[in-house]
Amino acid sequence: MRIACVQCEPEYLEPEANRSKTDALLDDLDADLVVLPELLPSGYFFRSEADVASVVEDERGPTTAWLHDWAQQLDAVLVAGYPEKDGDALYNSAAIVGPSGLIDTYRKVHLFNEEKRWFEPGDNGFPVHTITTSSGTTYRLGVMICFDWYFPEAARTLALQGADVIAHPSNLVLPHCPNSMPIRARENHVFTITANRYGSETSGDETLDFIGQSSVCDPNGDVLYRGKDEGDEVFTTTIRPHEARNRRINKYNDIFADRRPDMYNLTSD
Amino acid sequence: MRIACVQCEPEYLEPEANRSKTDALLDDLDADLVVLPELLPSGYFFRSEADVASVVEDERGPTTAWLHDWAQQLDAVLVAGYPEKDGDALYNSAAIVGPSGLIDTYRKVHLFNEEKRWFEPGDNGFPVHTITTSSGTTYRLGVMICFDWYFPEAARTLALQGADVIAHPSNLVLPHCPNSMPIRARENHVFTITANRYGSETSGDETLDFIGQSSVCDPNGDVLYRGKDEGDEVFTTTIRPHEARNRRINKYNDIFADRRPDMYNLTSD
Repeated sequence: MRIACVQCEPEYLEPEANRSKTDALLDDLDADLVVLPELLPSGYFFRSEADVASVVEDERGPTTAWLHDWAQQLDAVLVAGYPEKDGDALYNSAAIVGPSGLIDTYRKVHLFNEEKRWFEPGDNGFPVHTITTSSGTTYRLGVMICFDWYFPEAARTLALQGADVIAHPSNLVLPHCPNSMPIRARENHVFTITANRYGSETSGDETLDFIGQSSVCDPNGDVLYRGKDEGDEVFTTTIRPHEARNRRINKYNDIFADRRPDMYNLTSD
Repeated sequence: MRIACVQCEPEYLEPEANRSKTDALLDDLDADLVVLPELLPSGYFFRSEADVASVVEDERGPTTAWLHDWAQQLDAVLVAGYPEKDGDALYNSAAIVGPSGLIDTYRKVHLFNEEKRWFEPGDNGFPVHTITTSSGTTYRLGVMICFDWYFPEAARTLALQGADVIAHPSNLVLPHCPNSMPIRARENHVFTITANRYGSETSGDETLDFIGQSSVCDPNGDVLYRGKDEGDEVFTTTIRPHEARNRRINKYNDIFADRRPDMYNLTSD
């Protein structure tokens, strides 16, 4: 199957402009799965509740509709972050949209820094979806967003529930993630697709610089792609998702069968 | 407190020679905690059950006695790997020995490759010990051995049970661990001390090359030390173990309080 990782630069509170300038990056893309950054339509560094309120949308909003158009046009599944409103609750979410429409919405479980001022933490866990491409390849897709990478349990949960591929829309500001994703990929033997943004945003006297460096890793932890610090980039490649399913690394070790849950204590003392 | 990370080259089936050549590395060491490699007295790449049987020892064997002598002489805690025999069961273990004697034996939970031919997997989980140095610093020590690093649950369990410092005796052959330990340190906000061996061993027509590159990381994931590929090395430094206890990385995030166990599913599907 073909995957695409899109790095771009959303503008603050410009949803229509952001979708429209992303159109140019999606045009004629040859991919079965396309991963776009976190909070693609809205930008990231919110300055007020009113600013957030001006860009949130629900699962049937303009961003999922736009993603659905592209999913039909490309015959692909797209994963993109957007600020979700569900009743009174707001989430930092990612829509998973295929040619037939919305497949699911993942709500970011681990909120970073001031995101906690604006959003509720995700409440639906880490679901995994079985998807068949138009050419008949079946793969299992999991989603996590940005800071979720910091918690090994996120990618672990997705992989243990069967994910072959982790789509990872991001707005990274800390420098550590690009060097950490190969470890997340290797320890779980999954493909990871981190679609990050670049550029900077300012709120008050604070400026956030987004680091670019979008990346794609294979189940061996090898880096198939690392983007530049700045600039629009679309990386596409062919992967064989079933390669993620054999967790055997030598004659004696299968890294999932070798887990020893009875020896772990993953509750705080 | 002062910590020491010892990189050396055990010889196959030469326990007395191995202890004795390690003496020169320990002499006059200024450290409260000294970490030595996995299977220090025996070497690693066993060729037969008879070879293993010739070097196993129990908790009151010559290696723990030798460690106790050094613990008294240095007024320190030493952690070193050795092949343990307990009744009929053999383990790839690490002795934790202080001036008052044996504190505990950690038995490697995740056995790598042909180790499964010789050893039982560890059955005591990942205990954490509270230790006070002679100068009155109290710290919490956890131990994991070599391949345990591959499983995020190992370091996670130790950190969640309160470890400030993870002693990590190793005989690494895969290349990935040195770049992964900074992530283990950061995701758990702990100090890690990976004491690795170097050199090579042959069994039949297969040769294992050990990679050296012993390493010490701080809770920010910064690498305080990375050893060379080859050669005896003793790295010592001063650490403040209480730095591991504040898991806050900004005003809104505490990486332990932010965990969402109700959202994780860490059982295989």
